[in-house]
Amino acid sequence: MSRTLITGGTLVSTTGAVPTDVLVDGETVAALLAPGTGAELAVDRTIDATGKYVLPGGVDVHTHMEMPFGGTEASDTFETGTYAAAWGGTTTIVDFVVQRTGQVVQECLDTWHQKAAGNCYVDYGFHMILGGVDEDSLKAMDQLVDHEGITSFKLFMAYPGVFLSDDAQILRAMQRASGNGAMTMMHAENGTAIDELVRQALARGETDPVFHGLTRPPLLESEAVNRAVTLAEVAGGTPLYVVHVSASQALERIAAARTTGANVFAETCPQYLYLTLEDHLGAGGAGSFEGAKYACSTPLRSKHEPHAADLWKGLRTDDLAVVSTDHCPFCFQDQKQLGRGDFSKIPNGMGGVEHRLDLVHQGVADGKLSLQRWVETCSTTPARMFGMYPKKGVVAPGSDADIVIYDPAATTRVSAETHHMNIDYSAYEGFELRGGVTTVMARGEVLRDGDTFTGRKRRGAYVPRGLSQYLR
Amino acid sequence: MSRTLITGGTLVSTTGAVPTDVLVDGETVAALLAPGTGAELAVDRTIDATGKYVLPGGVDVHTHMEMPFGGTEASDTFETGTYAAAWGGTTTIVDFVVQRTGQVVQECLDTWHQKAAGNCYVDYGFHMILGGVDEDSLKAMDQLVDHEGITSFKLFMAYPGVFLSDDAQILRAMQRASGNGAMTMMHAENGTAIDELVRQALARGETDPVFHGLTRPPLLESEAVNRAVTLAEVAGGTPLYVVHVSASQALERIAAARTTGANVFAETCPQYLYLTLEDHLGAGGAGSFEGAKYACSTPLRSKHEPHAADLWKGLRTDDLAVVSTDHCPFCFQDQKQLGRGDFSKIPNGMGGVEHRLDLVHQGVADGKLSLQRWVETCSTTPARMFGMYPKKGVVAPGSDADIVIYDPAATTRVSAETHHMNIDYSAYEGFELRGGVTTVMARGEVLRDGDTFTGRKRRGAYVPRGLSQYLR
Amino acid sequence: MSRTLITGGTLVSTTGAVPTDVLVDGETVAALLAPGTGAELAVDRTIDATGKYVLPGGVDVHTHMEMPFGGTEASDTFETGTYAAAWGGTTTIVDFVVQRTGQVVQECLDTWHQKAAGNCYVDYGFHMILGGVDEDSLKAMDQLVDHEGITSFKLFMAYPGVFLSDDAQILRAMQRASGNGAMTMMHAENGTAIDELVRQALARGETDPVFHGLTRPPLLESEAVNRAVTLAEVAGGTPLYVVHVSASQALERIAAARTTGANVFAETCPQYLYLTLEDHLGAGGAGSFEGAKYACSTPLRSKHEPHAADLWKGLRTDDLAVVSTDHCPFCFQDQKQLGRGDFSKIPNGMGGVEHRLDLVHQGVADGKLSLQRWVETCSTTPARMFGMYPKKGVVAPGSDADIVIYDPAATTRVSAETHHMNIDYSAYEGFELRGGVTTVMARGEVLRDGDTFTGRKRRGAYVPRGLSQYLR
Amino acid sequence: MSRTLITGGTLVSTTGAVPTDVLVDGETVAALLAPGTGAELAVDRTIDATGKYVLPGGVDVHTHMEMPFGGTEASDTFETGTYAAAWGGTTTIVDFVVQRTGQVVQECLDTWHQKAAGNCYVDYGFHMILGGVDEDSLKAMDQLVDHEGITSFKLFMAYPGVFLSDDAQILRAMQRASGNGAMTMMHAENGTAIDELVRQALARGETDPVFHGLTRPPLLESEAVNRAVTLAEVAGGTPLYVVHVSASQALERIAAARTTGANVFAETCPQYLYLTLEDHLGAGGAGSFEGAKYACSTPLRSKHEPHAADLWKGLRTDDLAVVSTDHCPFCFQDQKQLGRGDFSKIPNGMGGVEHRLDLVHQGVADGKLSLQRWVETCSTTPARMFGMYPKKGVVAPGSDADIVIYDPAATTRVSAETHHMNIDYSAYEGFELRGGVTTVMARGEVLRDGDTFTGRKRRGAYVPRGLSQYLR
Repeated sequence: MSRTLITGGTLVSTTGAVPTDVLVDGETVAALLAPGTGAELAVDRTIDATGKYVLPGGVDVHTHMEMPFGGTEASDTFETGTYAAAWGGTTTIVDFVVQRTGQVVQECLDTWHQKAAGNCYVDYGFHMILGGVDEDSLKAMDQLVDHEGITSFKLFMAYPGVFLSDDAQILRAMQRASGNGAMTMMHAENGTAIDELVRQALARGETDPVFHGLTRPPLLESEAVNRAVTLAEVAGGTPLYVVHVSASQALERIAAARTTGANVFAETCPQYLYLTLEDHLGAGGAGSFEGAKYACSTPLRSKHEPHAADLWKGLRTDDLAVVSTDHCPFCFQDQKQLGRGDFSKIPNGMGGVEHRLDLVHQGVADGKLSLQRWVETCSTTPARMFGMYPKKGVVAPGSDADIVIYDPAATTRVSAETHHMNIDYSAYEGFELRGGVTTVMARGEVLRDGDTFTGRKRRGAYVPRGLSQYLR
Repeated sequence: MSRTLITGGTLVSTTGAVPTDVLVDGETVAALLAPGTGAELAVDRTIDATGKYVLPGGVDVHTHMEMPFGGTEASDTFETGTYAAAWGGTTTIVDFVVQRTGQVVQECLDTWHQKAAGNCYVDYGFHMILGGVDEDSLKAMDQLVDHEGITSFKLFMAYPGVFLSDDAQILRAMQRASGNGAMTMMHAENGTAIDELVRQALARGETDPVFHGLTRPPLLESEAVNRAVTLAEVAGGTPLYVVHVSASQALERIAAARTTGANVFAETCPQYLYLTLEDHLGAGGAGSFEGAKYACSTPLRSKHEPHAADLWKGLRTDDLAVVSTDHCPFCFQDQKQLGRGDFSKIPNGMGGVEHRLDLVHQGVADGKLSLQRWVETCSTTPARMFGMYPKKGVVAPGSDADIVIYDPAATTRVSAETHHMNIDYSAYEGFELRGGVTTVMARGEVLRDGDTFTGRKRRGAYVPRGLSQYLR
Repeated sequence: MSRTLITGGTLVSTTGAVPTDVLVDGETVAALLAPGTGAELAVDRTIDATGKYVLPGGVDVHTHMEMPFGGTEASDTFETGTYAAAWGGTTTIVDFVVQRTGQVVQECLDTWHQKAAGNCYVDYGFHMILGGVDEDSLKAMDQLVDHEGITSFKLFMAYPGVFLSDDAQILRAMQRASGNGAMTMMHAENGTAIDELVRQALARGETDPVFHGLTRPPLLESEAVNRAVTLAEVAGGTPLYVVHVSASQALERIAAARTTGANVFAETCPQYLYLTLEDHLGAGGAGSFEGAKYACSTPLRSKHEPHAADLWKGLRTDDLAVVSTDHCPFCFQDQKQLGRGDFSKIPNGMGGVEHRLDLVHQGVADGKLSLQRWVETCSTTPARMFGMYPKKGVVAPGSDADIVIYDPAATTRVSAETHHMNIDYSAYEGFELRGGVTTVMARGEVLRDGDTFTGRKRRGAYVPRGLSQYLR
Repeated sequence: MSRTLITGGTLVSTTGAVPTDVLVDGETVAALLAPGTGAELAVDRTIDATGKYVLPGGVDVHTHMEMPFGGTEASDTFETGTYAAAWGGTTTIVDFVVQRTGQVVQECLDTWHQKAAGNCYVDYGFHMILGGVDEDSLKAMDQLVDHEGITSFKLFMAYPGVFLSDDAQILRAMQRASGNGAMTMMHAENGTAIDELVRQALARGETDPVFHGLTRPPLLESEAVNRAVTLAEVAGGTPLYVVHVSASQALERIAAARTTGANVFAETCPQYLYLTLEDHLGAGGAGSFEGAKYACSTPLRSKHEPHAADLWKGLRTDDLAVVSTDHCPFCFQDQKQLGRGDFSKIPNGMGGVEHRLDLVHQGVADGKLSLQRWVETCSTTPARMFGMYPKKGVVAPGSDADIVIYDPAATTRVSAETHHMNIDYSAYEGFELRGGVTTVMARGEVLRDGDTFTGRKRRGAYVPRGLSQYLR
């Protein structure tokens, strides 16, 4: 196996940023060294990281590659999606297997393994979406935890008739998780009430994309969060992870639960930190359908309310532990168009797997987040939250050599013309972000070296996961 | 310089516990190595840590060696106190210089440097107690921050006429800290009201030691916390660190401030996790003076209220970031006796610098705290909180080789007969704790090897500190 | 019409207790007079109330006379139930018409009018239970508000398949109420989750009555309250009245909503102030079925938790505005027995319409509630809450002469042997309560004079109600 | 004694508004009568109130007539102030006797009796300001409660060196009140910190009137409220009444205490409902001294924050129980001028005793407050809060015949040119308010009849007060 020494860089960890050399031996990190200490070591290659940050590869625990939804499929396949992830310094994704009522969980898993196997540029794991909680799928949970490396199960309080679990189903799944140690992930929106608001809006002729957001008020997110927190407590205090938190009120409820010491965790996504409900309107002018580009659920929130500032605060306080992308892209030309004349038919989702590190680093540049929290929320905590530590999420001896060299002095310009995701638009078109990825190494292999991509598609391997390592 | 390799152990960090070898070169850590990787390295000595934890040396940021108080002095000198600290795996203390009204800050600092210099077994830093906030002492703050490595200033809301600063003085000091970046430490008890309760109790003939606790109700701690939090916000959001939190109500107020994202931090101490108001009564029976052993401020709280459980919870949630000892021992025979017949004359304080790691590790054994939080609260966060990272608080390349090897399978029995502190009693007499310190290394030198002490008194050096590295 | 003068008594109102004479002329109060002032008036009869309280007749806004439930019917008919109410000083009840899915609202109302008309000893109004929210029943709401004197509609978050409305139905009904001004009453328990817990308990062989309470944990009450409060806000801030609050956590959520100024109101019932979960166990010993006597929903709460004390506090703070009885009695011998071997088949409900004034007055005697709040929670506020003021709920000129003369020095002993309700047991058997009803007058006619009943069955008349007069 | 019948009006009480005739006999109300019922009664005079409200005379529990402050005296004497009060429908005031350190409480009371006796147009009571809490003044508290009809004692957390009591003094006074049943009134601002901010502002040359407000930030009001609430609880839960609440944060703290059931009460004043910090600036333009007209403490709050809306909400929820005026007028020409060039020398205070009923009624007209709460906050609750019920605060048989006839259809225009207070400006100059006082009767005598004043100066009598009747 070859040995590589990364010298001159500043290793950023969750506790600090310290000049450190990193010795990579084969696929893993062999040593961390005080600068210069490695001189006596025989190495095959040296990478000069002078003036740069050295950090663990990004871990994006919320992606939906080639996800079937709303009569179409997310436009990024595992191949194109992990290719873009690699460009952006994300070296591990955790995607979602989808099970629906009546489907056999293990068969669904097999299907997803077939989609991903041999097609990924970076390592990947799977969460399991349980769209149909019943005796069979509950039994399958134990099997997946014990034998398949799947330790997290996502339930939906939204999308009645599609994914929604009722409170009895949620309770049963949580009780099962309480027994087998799994993490329950929750899409927390009161979909029953939302769908009623949607029906009413459409009946009033309110069909434009902005009504997607207006029919999903913040209170229906916080209500669902409260219900999920309560059910988790009734189920014996089983760990709960709330996905894509977008509203101040939802964050407030999460923070309250966390103050009691409950194992309640949450993520937000870059879109909620930067984009707003008003973007639906601004894009293309009134009556334009351009706003459909911004349709995702939970929805973007109004700039006239303090949601984004509160979410940054939540990242600082750890009430939001993770930044993931909820990457679920749909092209504007032939997919988002499905919702023309009826916002409820717009495929829900946005692309972002490529720019997460940069978008959050901009927060560091703006003084909204510390350097340590950048690494913690984008890599270390997601790895710990979902049982991949210390293989993933840290640059430490024995860990996978998933390493990003990052130049804080660079500028990253976001555009659909230059991005590597398979989407025909970017919701962040024209954003100029402080900092940029220089080098990406995954399990010891350099995938990206400056502007050159050197990765191989078949390199990404499945990561079986253990139980959460982030419990309190 | 000699090189030592610690092999076979499990390195405990704030994010996990991973088998890792540690190479020490001279006074610092040279490398962290995947197990076995160091075989090619030339080393002078190997320490076998198989089956043991390897962790950064303890950092106790709240001690009062030979502190003048109540007409006597804390019974541990810098020599005896740091000797005991070393035994217990604490390799850095931060003690308090005392300035009182009219005294020149720099002169006080000089005095304390003279007390400590050449007498310490482990490294030490200083906070500055400002007992007399005025134009001169405020100016001195800047000087100490910029040139003396003192970046934290303790104020008292208790002890009128001795240390108490009024709200105008507190505000002025906080405003100054807001400018120079210092951390304000606060003894948060409403001393004006407490002293009134004390007067009333004594007038009623309530002179026994338990009345020390009964005249300092939890609400007068939480009130002061609220006031301190408010003044810090009025002063521009300057960082605040509340010392020795003992009451649920105080913790609740701190947690509320932290949820808003404020730079508010707090510590608790082992005595509040294990001992209670009722210990005053239990010791020696009714009318006995034995209860004086437990007199400290903030006081021990009632076992009939959920204080201790809440404090453990606070350690889990990081609303309590640090466990320190507030080590301020007074012998029972000739010091605590000063308060016989008048509890208000009992010298306030308890000894504990030696057993902090063990007492908190017992919480790990009991499932109340994770292994990572043990290391974080006892070493990493205190080092970061007070600007000593990465020199202190972490086992990482370039850091001081302050390392504890800890055996989780050992048992530590606490007794005045065997402890190394200069106190004639132990408040934890007879406690049997799970786990025990095996080896203590400080800046590369082994101080303790099993039951053998190999340290040298003059070895401890002053640690000038930078600004807090724990801000949000 | 005849004129009666009540002299010598102390008139208790919501603001005080003042010696006042009351002149009744026919069915209404003609005048309040300073003591002695009425000497010049010609009256037909004088009632001496010296040493007694004079107060407005009780208004019980939550009764279920001859309610069909669980395959049986509440054991008190409108006749027997209003007879008992009259004995206990309650001169107005508001009962519930029941509509279920598919039933026509107006037809249900007609049915209930037939049950009650000509059978009541005291006046009565109706709320409407909407068990089936759909376009027809929503339209009927407007009709009932505008033309039938029914201005309050009760929805259930419990009893799936029987009464439960889903969140879309709740939202629609609340939106309609937001338009027509009606009050939404809510049975707030998460019935979907509860029914799952019930199934699990029965599957484990947990069939005794106490499991009725154990499968309805407080958190599933507070969750539902939170959801109802949220939906009411989403529906435009429509008024919400939470029935039979029993848990501290539910009260806490109500209080939080009220602090924001929301039109959120709540009632509790005497059973939650006096009886506990443990009463299920205590009655008859382990394995006994006697505990079935205490099965009601929301359930009785544990005496080891502070629910009852918190409810009394809520009555003091007005976070609980009303004490009603949720009178829904089932005899032990032939009705509660339906649940032998399966607690879920025990008809839910308890009898209490007769003793509400006495049970709450005991709180006055115990110093838990002021005299004014006694009258306010038992008479004035319920009348205002549900649009019957000033006809009901107050002794004032022009109001119905519904008057109770109450002797605070009397003792009321509760027993199935002596009560007038048609139930074969009393949950308060043997209670000795301070105070007792002396005289009950309804619309100017004396129904009870000491131990003599002088009322007439056909006297009770339907009270059409206006919109709530208690909005903020 | 003569008898007067007020007919045709709508009697507004705390629970409703009902057509009622009122019979006045001599100084008191003899009867309330259903309309027309009084036909048989012999009366001397009839007042036609058709189309008008009939309500209890206003009770203003916070005035400072001829108060010595800041080297001058409030410009309204008891004579001119009560004359203005009478015009505005306020028939009872409670003013403040001032005691300072070293002064004998009883002597201060004598002095104030001399000021008021024979000079008042309406009835008056006294609170006692304790500026110097010591053994003597504490003893005097009992004497005043038991023998002088003074049952409320005001302490200051502001004005160090003038009125400020330290926390020990506050605690002692509260403990005494806990024993004798008195109400503690609190000026809740952290004066020690404020005075420091004032010194700093002046040192920076910030001398304009607006800096009066800017140096008294909302947090220093809420901090003091929290401290007062805490001390009251430590003192045994003694009742606390916070005067002139102006900040959302202070209200929030009061509401939190009230939710726990504590006997914590508060008032606000019209200036905080209508005027803002920015009025300091708007008056006369930048650099102008006109802003001094708006200097009062607590200060006016910024219109960019939700203080006023929150205060209206607090009045609805009863977290604010009372509207008083804190009437303490200083003329602009020769009194406010004392602060030219140094805002800290502006006499603090505004005039408002005349327009309270109108200013709060405007809130009724605007839909911010119910008619009942108008009467409750302006008359009934203040009377109950301070032990004057049922003599004052209600129109009921036996009560003093203090009655206002109010025309909701009138318009009241506020101007210094037309007001009756002895101030040369009005902070509400030009306000046009909906509604107006038509007739004012005090103890049976008409003081104002339309635009004609018929009152007599010597009529106002001292009202000895009992303990609070508003405790929970």
